Amino acid sequence: MDYIQKSKEVLWLPFTQMKEYDLNPLVIESGQGIKIKDTEGNEYYDANSSVWLNPHGHRKQELNEALVKQLGKIAHSTMLGMANVPAVELAAKLVDLTPKGLDRVFYSDSGATAVEIALKMAFQYWLNIGVTIRKRFITMHNGYHGDTIGSISVGDIDIYHQIYQPLMFQSFVAPYPYTYRHQSGDPEETKKDCLEQLKKVLEEHHDEVCAVMVEPMMQGAGGMVNMPPGFLKGVRELCTQYNVLMIADEVAVGFGRTGKLFACMHESVVPDILTAGKMLTGGYLPVAITMVSEGIYQAFYDDYEKMKTLFHGHSYTGNQLGCAVALENLRLYEKERTVEGVAEKTPFMKKQLETLYELDHVGDVRQVGFMSGIELVKNKQTKEPYPWQERIGWKATLEMRKLGLMTRPIGDVIVFMPPLASTEEDIKQMVSRIKKGIYQVTKEVSIR
Amino acid sequence: MDYIQKSKEVLWLPFTQMKEYDLNPLVIESGQGIKIKDTEGNEYYDANSSVWLNPHGHRKQELNEALVKQLGKIAHSTMLGMANVPAVELAAKLVDLTPKGLDRVFYSDSGATAVEIALKMAFQYWLNIGVTIRKRFITMHNGYHGDTIGSISVGDIDIYHQIYQPLMFQSFVAPYPYTYRHQSGDPEETKKDCLEQLKKVLEEHHDEVCAVMVEPMMQGAGGMVNMPPGFLKGVRELCTQYNVLMIADEVAVGFGRTGKLFACMHESVVPDILTAGKMLTGGYLPVAITMVSEGIYQAFYDDYEKMKTLFHGHSYTGNQLGCAVALENLRLYEKERTVEGVAEKTPFMKKQLETLYELDHVGDVRQVGFMSGIELVKNKQTKEPYPWQERIGWKATLEMRKLGLMTRPIGDVIVFMPPLASTEEDIKQMVSRIKKGIYQVTKEVSIR
Repeated sequence: MDYIQKSKEVLWLPFTQMKEYDLNPLVIESGQGIKIKDTEGNEYYDANSSVWLNPHGHRKQELNEALVKQLGKIAHSTMLGMANVPAVELAAKLVDLTPKGLDRVFYSDSGATAVEIALKMAFQYWLNIGVTIRKRFITMHNGYHGDTIGSISVGDIDIYHQIYQPLMFQSFVAPYPYTYRHQSGDPEETKKDCLEQLKKVLEEHHDEVCAVMVEPMMQGAGGMVNMPPGFLKGVRELCTQYNVLMIADEVAVGFGRTGKLFACMHESVVPDILTAGKMLTGGYLPVAITMVSEGIYQAFYDDYEKMKTLFHGHSYTGNQLGCAVALENLRLYEKERTVEGVAEKTPFMKKQLETLYELDHVGDVRQVGFMSGIELVKNKQTKEPYPWQERIGWKATLEMRKLGLMTRPIGDVIVFMPPLASTEEDIKQMVSRIKKGIYQVTKEVSIR
Repeated sequence: MDYIQKSKEVLWLPFTQMKEYDLNPLVIESGQGIKIKDTEGNEYYDANSSVWLNPHGHRKQELNEALVKQLGKIAHSTMLGMANVPAVELAAKLVDLTPKGLDRVFYSDSGATAVEIALKMAFQYWLNIGVTIRKRFITMHNGYHGDTIGSISVGDIDIYHQIYQPLMFQSFVAPYPYTYRHQSGDPEETKKDCLEQLKKVLEEHHDEVCAVMVEPMMQGAGGMVNMPPGFLKGVRELCTQYNVLMIADEVAVGFGRTGKLFACMHESVVPDILTAGKMLTGGYLPVAITMVSEGIYQAFYDDYEKMKTLFHGHSYTGNQLGCAVALENLRLYEKERTVEGVAEKTPFMKKQLETLYELDHVGDVRQVGFMSGIELVKNKQTKEPYPWQERIGWKATLEMRKLGLMTRPIGDVIVFMPPLASTEEDIKQMVSRIKKGIYQVTKEVSIR
């Protein structure tokens, strides 16, 4: 089969303008460690961990073995009304590993569905305890929580969400502390300002609000924007003060990406509901989780006739293969000190990334652990962005592809999120390719 | 680990009142063929195919081998902006197997997300071709399309959906042809009546409608209700006549469940969009698909700046492991004549099921291929249902569990959807247990 040709004929790829794909088609055939290989034999550094998923690299022996072992028992049975062995073991492990106060695990298959479940839980929680007027959510400017209708209703990225307005419910939007583009340019001022504005929204609307949605420590799809220290804690305090639930969406930041097992741990914050997924299975299989406090769980626990049940489920909820590989993944985290490793290598990565400021069009470099974004600007002094139609970010990543490195931009922010197992040498190699790619493209454009 | 105890402590199961689970806990440990075994060593017939998923039985050698083979290459890489080998092969296969006119495959992980994608495609399709007033959907009474906010907005099962109204968009609802409870009691009359009413909705609202959602041939979660012959074709004709898209949701009925590979094929219907999942991977892993005509695809195909891209994707979209096992599953369908087998065994199953009418409280038995539902009623003559609070259906399935058979009711409809590989002897054994279970419970209740 001519895979390239066939891929153009039969696929519709996610988040992809297929006219662009047809100009730059690519079919991955295999992977090993932190590199992936296409059907033409070209190898690439997997510099965004296959879009934020892969902690240990590809074809990890222990993960493969865990799957083979589970295949010897059963691949999948339903969780509707019953449980299964690896799903129980994994849930017990997750209750141990997450911040104290998150006591129950509800499984699904993607970050978006984990968020949908969180929304329905938060909404129904208030009804179940007899509060009938709370029907709204607060989210953050540029927040991203997935692409299903519920998820985009608590999202705020215009380019992805705006046209679907007639299908969405309306959420309140509070500003997110984007220091680089805040009028002050100062983290502390930015934090204060944004917390004050969130407080205003809560002051005015808390009676009708179910929950506040937040991506802890770093907004992902919104452009890799890190929070100033203290902001997350401030959000938690406001939620408590105004008696609304806090939903921490750790789909992008969870499982060690930021140098702590969960990003909330940076500020010792315990949300009422936590969503996660992506790296949970070592980048192997779709399993996502929605975790809640026992208090929320108890609000749904009653005689059937009371009609407090959460009627939600997906076909492969709690899939044995997925749970088995997730369990082995978490064992590897302990055995290989994966999260500690990220924390230890973070200063080195920071140093490497700082060399990017030498380039004329690198405006801001943002990093929390192994999650980083490099914002390209037309004018470094004025912070003037490139016109979006120029697609500078996209062009830069195409250039990097030629240099043997794969990543994906968010607008004009280059994402660098290497597998957590990447060594310092790996990071050095990857950053040098990123630098070259940015230079090539921004130089050319400057000359034009 | 005491799995039973632990499951009560850390899990929140889908579609489950956990207070009921705590009274009847169960943890599955392994499976072989059409049976599953719990941690206590009890074996059960998997009489609903692990909630409608499993065609060949558990631990199928060829499926296991396909997964092991794929593990030797790569478990997963992203589909955002690129493709992968098994995803291309599977998409090519699906384009071949589905009704002619479905030319493109968009992957996701669950039926609900496949539906969300279908909704967003249908909605954006009209915008992309310059029609700006189509913002609504038509669905069928008691329709079920998943549990995310978009999916429930085109669903119509009150018990699952009603409380979330403030979060949902509003759809038009047309009646579904439920012959047993139609005033005529006659399939042909029921069909005519329902098509007329759908026509009325279209007549009045077609200008504002994106698409009609329908579960072809048999409504699943709505109560296993089969369509009268000609109804599906009638829906297709009305969609064409009023120029609205037709979305066929084959998540429950697809991949041979009804005795044809896709249920639409019973009436030679080609929808504009088709969603499927569940049995696609042989009951092993979460992969779902949204397939569309080339015409719809082309409406999104343009220069990036035109902003016609579908911005939608999930972390594990096009997962290699899932696609590899799906490919092997479809090879097995051909090799083992799985769908032909269902068609051949259907009359035998029908005969077995008809013996259930001997019971005093079996009101209606409905079947399309290996998809069947047995409706229990308090009074067979008047068709009076049991009060829902009596939970007769649920009690009957608990009784069946004691008899070594696992299934799950929909209200007072007992679901019987055996793995497609079940032999006639298997079917006989299963139906006899279903009969005994129903008898035990309805007898006891009658006596009370």
